[in-house]
Amino acid sequence: MSVPVRFSGILSPVVTPFNRDLSPDPERLVDHCRWLLSKKVGLAVFGTNSEGNSLSVEEKFALLDGLVDAGIEPGRLMPGTGCCALPDTVELTRYATELGCGGVLMLPPFYYKNVSDDGLFGSYSEVIERVGSSRLRIYLYHIPPVAQVGLSIDLVERLVHRYPGTVVGIKDSSGDWNNTQALIERKWDDFRVFAGSETFLLQTMRAGGAGCISATANINPAAIQQLYAGWQSAAADSQQQGLDDFRLLMHRYPMIPALKAVIARYTRDTEWGIVRPPLVELPSDQYQSLVAMLEKRGFSMPGRCD
Amino acid sequence: MSVPVRFSGILSPVVTPFNRDLSPDPERLVDHCRWLLSKKVGLAVFGTNSEGNSLSVEEKFALLDGLVDAGIEPGRLMPGTGCCALPDTVELTRYATELGCGGVLMLPPFYYKNVSDDGLFGSYSEVIERVGSSRLRIYLYHIPPVAQVGLSIDLVERLVHRYPGTVVGIKDSSGDWNNTQALIERKWDDFRVFAGSETFLLQTMRAGGAGCISATANINPAAIQQLYAGWQSAAADSQQQGLDDFRLLMHRYPMIPALKAVIARYTRDTEWGIVRPPLVELPSDQYQSLVAMLEKRGFSMPGRCD
Repeated sequence: MSVPVRFSGILSPVVTPFNRDLSPDPERLVDHCRWLLSKKVGLAVFGTNSEGNSLSVEEKFALLDGLVDAGIEPGRLMPGTGCCALPDTVELTRYATELGCGGVLMLPPFYYKNVSDDGLFGSYSEVIERVGSSRLRIYLYHIPPVAQVGLSIDLVERLVHRYPGTVVGIKDSSGDWNNTQALIERKWDDFRVFAGSETFLLQTMRAGGAGCISATANINPAAIQQLYAGWQSAAADSQQQGLDDFRLLMHRYPMIPALKAVIARYTRDTEWGIVRPPLVELPSDQYQSLVAMLEKRGFSMPGRCD
Repeated sequence: MSVPVRFSGILSPVVTPFNRDLSPDPERLVDHCRWLLSKKVGLAVFGTNSEGNSLSVEEKFALLDGLVDAGIEPGRLMPGTGCCALPDTVELTRYATELGCGGVLMLPPFYYKNVSDDGLFGSYSEVIERVGSSRLRIYLYHIPPVAQVGLSIDLVERLVHRYPGTVVGIKDSSGDWNNTQALIERKWDDFRVFAGSETFLLQTMRAGGAGCISATANINPAAIQQLYAGWQSAAADSQQQGLDDFRLLMHRYPMIPALKAVIARYTRDTEWGIVRPPLVELPSDQYQSLVAMLEKRGFSMPGRCD
């Protein structure tokens, strides 16, 4: 098994398809992942927008197996493995690492609030020591608006210094550009800073960051990848504006149900619209207005839905 | 197996003992539960103060088995079973119900924020339908300061009306007396409202509530039980004042590490002080000051530590 190459570019927190009985559907996940890879988008499965925290550890094992068995290159996978309970995080991280995943995206344990940096350092440290693999590559996941437990820059620095070949990057979904910029400016050795959405993609690239991990890359991967590839071109600012317009449109709706509704519409497979509780499917009036707006823009998902 | 009797009185979110390798210790848990039962305190294992969300589903199965195998009466157990992922909540709730637990204390799925009442109704509803047992008794767990996902009174009402023999009570850890009072005043048929701590015990009893589920009952059970038993007596107000003073003292320290430090001190078993990350053990200066204050008050844990 080769040594993992550090990620860069665009990744998507891949939405998770469910059957009518709410079980995950590995086959449709494979289809969607293949399409994303064809657009040069990496696979951050089990992220926030994947409903990753609505899946059990066993379900995640089975989905990872399904992807790898279908021939998806594990080096392109960055599964979310951070759970509330230490043994769950350890088990999942070990499984992903042994499967050859290029890295894992690791939330801190997120039930207990107002915990100390020492406590969070202890969490990551226990996971790293217990997994005990030279192949482990951790991308930290900082998303205080959802997890309500964030990672201070001091904590990130402690982890990078203590585990330099293991803690190799971060996804910053704080929505706070100053924080993303500060992370990039620390210039830790080959540390990869990903913006939490394409909103900050151009700024991130100009500051020396690695790319972005974006929900909307599930449906709009080519345009986001195009900006990544050509961020130094003259067209970059207007491309960023185009991405911002598209994201603004999507933000009129609850993101996960809306992403799934779009895939359902363009694949003509209504089951793609299914979400697990506590989320609810996009209401039909919102579905109609979203589809109308997309059609007005001439939106399509080439290669996915034709 | 007998039909569960609805809970009333005092319960404790039983602190979970860990070994040096951070594995849970079922034997010391049994010891502690026996002592609590001897003080007429029920066993809300796997609650917030139990570090319940730092335990895996498998660890919870093993601890429940350990308790029941040791002869603890399952009807006195109200394990926390609400996880982020639907299948985890279903599995754990089913297991507890089949074991004969008197009820379960169920958090809503707590990773995704700003979810709708429809989505939360869907979560509870799926769990109830999937477990599909006439023996299931759910006590809802409303703790917005920690879970950051709360249960509106409208949602509680919908659940009680839809599942009248199943959704039978709530623990209100909002810290908002108006909310607790409003829940009691709805007077749903034999619905049990528990205050989230002894701070509101006397008010809860006077308003017609069922009791309280309190962290400090881990170390101070007799005094809390005494107020519950004698809440209509002339001494009630001064007893409440005594409980408030004690709790105020404990609140100078992080609650879970402090509870465990007290048990460690009075059982002369330092391993009781161990917590799982992201929590950290009580620092030694805080330990010294806490113990000094307790000794000054003549604190003891009769029957536990002599």
